[in-house]
Amino acid sequence: MKNSTGIKIGLVGMGKIARDQHVPAIAGNPAFELVAVASPNHKLEGFPHYPDVASLLSAIPDIDALAICTPPQIRYDIARYALERGHHVMLEKPPGATLNEVRALVELAEQQKVALHATWHSREAAGVEPARQWLANRKVRNVIVTWKEDVRVWHPGQTWIWKAGGLGVFDPGINALSIITRILPGHLVLRDAELAFPSNCEAPVAATLQLRNEHGTAVRMEFDFLQTGPQTWDIAVETDDGRLLLSLGGSVLRINDDPVMQAPDREYPNLYARFEELVRERRIDVDVTPFRLVADAFMCGRRVVAAPFVE
Amino acid sequence: MKNSTGIKIGLVGMGKIARDQHVPAIAGNPAFELVAVASPNHKLEGFPHYPDVASLLSAIPDIDALAICTPPQIRYDIARYALERGHHVMLEKPPGATLNEVRALVELAEQQKVALHATWHSREAAGVEPARQWLANRKVRNVIVTWKEDVRVWHPGQTWIWKAGGLGVFDPGINALSIITRILPGHLVLRDAELAFPSNCEAPVAATLQLRNEHGTAVRMEFDFLQTGPQTWDIAVETDDGRLLLSLGGSVLRINDDPVMQAPDREYPNLYARFEELVRERRIDVDVTPFRLVADAFMCGRRVVAAPFVE
Repeated sequence: MKNSTGIKIGLVGMGKIARDQHVPAIAGNPAFELVAVASPNHKLEGFPHYPDVASLLSAIPDIDALAICTPPQIRYDIARYALERGHHVMLEKPPGATLNEVRALVELAEQQKVALHATWHSREAAGVEPARQWLANRKVRNVIVTWKEDVRVWHPGQTWIWKAGGLGVFDPGINALSIITRILPGHLVLRDAELAFPSNCEAPVAATLQLRNEHGTAVRMEFDFLQTGPQTWDIAVETDDGRLLLSLGGSVLRINDDPVMQAPDREYPNLYARFEELVRERRIDVDVTPFRLVADAFMCGRRVVAAPFVE
Repeated sequence: MKNSTGIKIGLVGMGKIARDQHVPAIAGNPAFELVAVASPNHKLEGFPHYPDVASLLSAIPDIDALAICTPPQIRYDIARYALERGHHVMLEKPPGATLNEVRALVELAEQQKVALHATWHSREAAGVEPARQWLANRKVRNVIVTWKEDVRVWHPGQTWIWKAGGLGVFDPGINALSIITRILPGHLVLRDAELAFPSNCEAPVAATLQLRNEHGTAVRMEFDFLQTGPQTWDIAVETDDGRLLLSLGGSVLRINDDPVMQAPDREYPNLYARFEELVRERRIDVDVTPFRLVADAFMCGRRVVAAPFVE
């Protein structure tokens, strides 16, 4: 820590997630002070602006940390640049475009003795930790994950999502993977996958995954990026002792149809509270399991061609 | 070790690689005793035969170790079954069908305190270690990898290679990845990839990869599975102090066009020597870097459709 009173932080990438989540979460945490933003196009009123990470770090070399909210395809070069200069780094999800990039960043952060945080915001949803605790003592038979949203509503203009490395429907789907790998005991491995690619895109618009763990739990996941009308982000778990339903991306928890948890969203405030700990202790928190499952699905999944996508 | 004099080993999967490489390598190493084979179809003359791993381990519960040479899609269940019962395990390459499977096996082997060896036979080729040493003190500018072979000659009847999880041309290509990740310093990350899938197959027949490391080294890899005539397994490295060429899959080394190394093939004997050490010390040697690069290429690569493949 270069500053013992507050953590001076900069945001790199000023897209939707930075504005909607990171800016208010930083403003609400007295441990952090937002001192600048870097983005080729977008400014943030009231804060110094730089076109890229190099000019930001050159102008403010004593900044403590950067939160990287750019599209995943360019995250690695930015994170490496910051880590090499001794700054702590928070990464939006997924933590990079490739798994080897993330491995390289972990080794660099270890060398530099700085904090590196690969965040999974959905794991901070209110129902996730109570769900994990409830499931820990039960035999899980069957899990159905339904993650269906309208890309035109939630990702307007985000053309990067359809490019190679943008992951398509796995950009929201990885949130479901981050939750199930947190709440289910054991090791989930992929047994089958089918990915549907629009004929004009490099990333899938829909996918079906079948996973399994060593305890015999079967998980079926349905991802769809063209869902109009009601949107669904549900995880339904059948156990030998009742049924659990996590809905709205983990924020609402029902057990045997009784609501047991519906708390206000604290996902990003929780991530920044965790990042503060990591920075103070110069520690690394990088769990690539959800991202590794995505890579496994791309590597082993069957591919089918879908209708072209036009926003 | 259940037997202090020799390591009793069984082979699971009796395809081409088991017959051509594992059987003679075990026969040539006095530390090992081949006691049985398991395969649904193929027997090995002179050795007890079982149809599957469960019947082999049920009949010979005091066997020390298994070498798993099946197609990768079924390796995980077999390896898990053996590790759960306390046996040491050697895995042919790639170490599984998915990365999460391999991670699960590593954690299981750690729990069980048995040896687990993810082998990369090409790293044992004669020229690889001298190449690594020569490159360690030089600035590498540019690497061209050309891995072009005829699938009909080298993989006759191996239909699994074209199925989802069979990896197609990455089955030989991962050998090249295993060599370059050993001989080049730094962290190679994928910058671009194009994969060509036959219209009737779930795995690619050709691929072009561009990688890069933090020292500015650029690596271009060309994989082709339909090469007739001369076959090519070459790695050409340009440095600031001369040129290195590894050919024939790493067995022939030339520096500035002078042959410096051409030794008889010791790939599998070396792997079994290493496995003996791991078994004696109950250690794990699992480097997934080459496999992780393959997954990255599937996840981020552009796809093109190629002509249907008929063997």
